[in-house]
Amino acid sequence: MTLSQPDSSQPEVTAPIFLAQARRHQTDTVPVWFMRQAGRALPEYRAIRGTGSILEAVQKPELAAEITLQPVRRYGVDAAVLYSDIIVPVNAIDFGVEIRPGRGPIVEHPIRSESDMKRFRALDPMSDMPYVIETIKLLKPELSVPLIGFAGAPFTVASYLIEGGPSKNFERTKALMFQEPELWDRIMSALSQLATEFLTAQLEAGVDAVQLFDSWAGALSPRHYRELVLPYTRRVFESIERFAVPRIHFGVGTSALISDMVDAPVEVLGLDWRVPISKATEQTRGQVALQGNLDPAICLSNWSTIETEARQILKEASTAPGFIFNLGHGVLPETDPGLLSDLVQFIHSQGRDLISANTEGN
Amino acid sequence: MTLSQPDSSQPEVTAPIFLAQARRHQTDTVPVWFMRQAGRALPEYRAIRGTGSILEAVQKPELAAEITLQPVRRYGVDAAVLYSDIIVPVNAIDFGVEIRPGRGPIVEHPIRSESDMKRFRALDPMSDMPYVIETIKLLKPELSVPLIGFAGAPFTVASYLIEGGPSKNFERTKALMFQEPELWDRIMSALSQLATEFLTAQLEAGVDAVQLFDSWAGALSPRHYRELVLPYTRRVFESIERFAVPRIHFGVGTSALISDMVDAPVEVLGLDWRVPISKATEQTRGQVALQGNLDPAICLSNWSTIETEARQILKEASTAPGFIFNLGHGVLPETDPGLLSDLVQFIHSQGRDLISANTEGN
Repeated sequence: MTLSQPDSSQPEVTAPIFLAQARRHQTDTVPVWFMRQAGRALPEYRAIRGTGSILEAVQKPELAAEITLQPVRRYGVDAAVLYSDIIVPVNAIDFGVEIRPGRGPIVEHPIRSESDMKRFRALDPMSDMPYVIETIKLLKPELSVPLIGFAGAPFTVASYLIEGGPSKNFERTKALMFQEPELWDRIMSALSQLATEFLTAQLEAGVDAVQLFDSWAGALSPRHYRELVLPYTRRVFESIERFAVPRIHFGVGTSALISDMVDAPVEVLGLDWRVPISKATEQTRGQVALQGNLDPAICLSNWSTIETEARQILKEASTAPGFIFNLGHGVLPETDPGLLSDLVQFIHSQGRDLISANTEGN
Repeated sequence: MTLSQPDSSQPEVTAPIFLAQARRHQTDTVPVWFMRQAGRALPEYRAIRGTGSILEAVQKPELAAEITLQPVRRYGVDAAVLYSDIIVPVNAIDFGVEIRPGRGPIVEHPIRSESDMKRFRALDPMSDMPYVIETIKLLKPELSVPLIGFAGAPFTVASYLIEGGPSKNFERTKALMFQEPELWDRIMSALSQLATEFLTAQLEAGVDAVQLFDSWAGALSPRHYRELVLPYTRRVFESIERFAVPRIHFGVGTSALISDMVDAPVEVLGLDWRVPISKATEQTRGQVALQGNLDPAICLSNWSTIETEARQILKEASTAPGFIFNLGHGVLPETDPGLLSDLVQFIHSQGRDLISANTEGN
C-alpha cells in the first residue's frame, strides 16, 4: 500500500487517511472502518435504538445521527457510515417493503409482471426522505472523519423485490432475468435510477464517499454478471462521477467477479475474506484501491486470533496501490466491541510500523 | 474435452462414458448426471417416498434402490447416484442427528467441548448400516450405468455438528477452528475416519466412483481452507486410493479454492456455475477432469434458456482434459423433469456433434 515515508521529500498529506488511501495517495498509517459498525454490537446502540424497524429509526434524524456517531467515538475508526439501509429509497417511494427484525427486507407483493413497474416512480429526496438529508446535515459539523453514504446496487435490491425477501438460490430473480429480458431491463433501469437519485441526494447533502452494496452479486456466473448486471451498476457509478468522491464497489463471494467489478468506474473495490488482497491486487492490476477483508466470524474469536489474522491481511495488502482495512462483511451482532477497538488501534500502530520498516529498508 | 474421433486409429472405448471421462480417456460423447437427481423433482419419487426423514427412507433397501434407479430410467443419465445423505454415517454411529424436512440436518446437542468426542466411535458398516450395503447389492445387477457413492467432507459435516444445524456464517465452527486447535483436530480426524469408513463400505459393496461433498468449504478463506481443512480431506481421498475408482471433489462457491482442492489426490473436480470451466481448466493445468456446472436455478427457466446455457458450458469445456456435465449444485425440487430429460438428450447429441466438427476440422 502507499504509505508516506517520513524522510522522503513528499509534502505532508493533510487529507483524511480514508479518503487519501481510497485515491491511492500516501498516508502515514492504514485507515479502518467497519461495515455495519453502527449497530447491535454496541451497548450504546441497543440503549437508544428503541423498537420498530430500521426504516422507522432512520426517519428520526437526531437518533440516526447519534447512531452514526457512536462507532466513531467508540472505535476511533477513520470514517463514519450513515446509519441507513439499502431499502430506504424503495421504501421512500412507497413501493411496499418493510424490514422484519431477524428476517430482513420483506416485500408483500413481489414483482411478478410489467404491471408492477407502475409502483416505481422518481425519488424526490426533499419530500420523500427529508430525514436522510437532515441526518447528514446534523452529522457534518459533528464529524472529524469523512462520512460514507451508500446504496444497494440494482441486482441486490432487485433480488429482494422479485423474491419477496432474502433468498438462498435467487430462483425467481434468475428466472425473470433469463425469461423476461425486457422486464429485467425495466426493473434494473428503474433501480439504477433509484440508486443514482439516492446517492446523489446523499452527496449533495455532504457525504464524502459512497459505497454501492451488490451484496448478492456473487450468486451469479461471471458471464451473467457481466451481461445482465454490470451495465446497470456501471450506470450508477457513472452518474455520480461529477461529485469526484471515492466510489466503493462491494459484494460478497465475488472472487470470480473481480475483474468485471472494476470494469465500472470505481476508486475502491471492497472484498470479502474469500480472496487474499494480494491476489486481488494482481487481478485489478493496481487500477483501484482495495478494501477488506477480515472474516467477521473471526471477530467472535479471541484477540490473539484476531491479531494473527489482521497481521496477515496487512501483509497481503502491502502491494496494494491503496488499502482500507475493513471486515469482509458487516459486524456480527454478537461481536465484543472491545475487540474492535483493539483492532482499530492495532491496524493504526501496525500501519505506522510498516512505514518504519519500509524506511529502514531504504 | 477428450472425445474419440471415428477416423482415428484409437481402439474402440468400451468403458462407460462417465468413468472414461473421469479418467480423461476418450469417449464418443459427453456424460451427464445430476446431483440430487433422485428426489423431489420426480413425481415417481413423491409417489413412493412416503413420510419420515431421508434417514428413515435409506434404511429401506428396496425403496432406496428404486429411488436410485428412477432418474436413470427417466433421464437416461450416465451414472446413478446412491440415494443417501452425508449425515447417514453420523446417524449410524448414534451421534444424535436428525433431518427435518425443509430445514436440513439438526443436531440437538452440538459439539461444545472435548467431552462430546465420546459420542464418536468407529463405524461398523455391517452392524451399523447394513441397509447401505444391501441397497448397493440390490442395485448393482439392475444398473447399466456406473453407481456413484458419496460422503460429506469433514469440514461440511463438522459445520452441522458444531452449529447444530444449517448455518449462514459458520460462527461457532470458525470460533472452534481458531480458538481450540486441538479439539478441531480431534473432530476433523474423527470425521475423516468416518468418511473413510463410509466410503470404504460403499466401495467394498460395489460403487464405481465416489464424490466427496465439501459443500460449504467456500465459506473459508483459501489460507484457512489450506491449513485447517484440506489436510483432513486429503486423508480421506488417500485412504481410498487402493480402490482405483474416480474420486470427485465438490464444493459450492469455491472459485478461490480451485488450486487447493486439486491438491488432494482426486480424478475429478466438481464446480458450481460461479467459475467458467475454461478458467478452471487453466487453473488445474489439465491435472483433473472437471464436472459441472449449470446453475440449477436456470433449470427452472424455459428450454430455450437452458439450451443456450448448456451450449455455452460445452463450449467452455472444450479444452478440459475430461468433462462430465452436471448442475452446479443439486436439482431444485421445483424443476420440471421433462426439461432435465431434454437436457440429457441435448448434451449427448451436442457431444456427438462436437466430434463431427472436430473430425471435419482435421
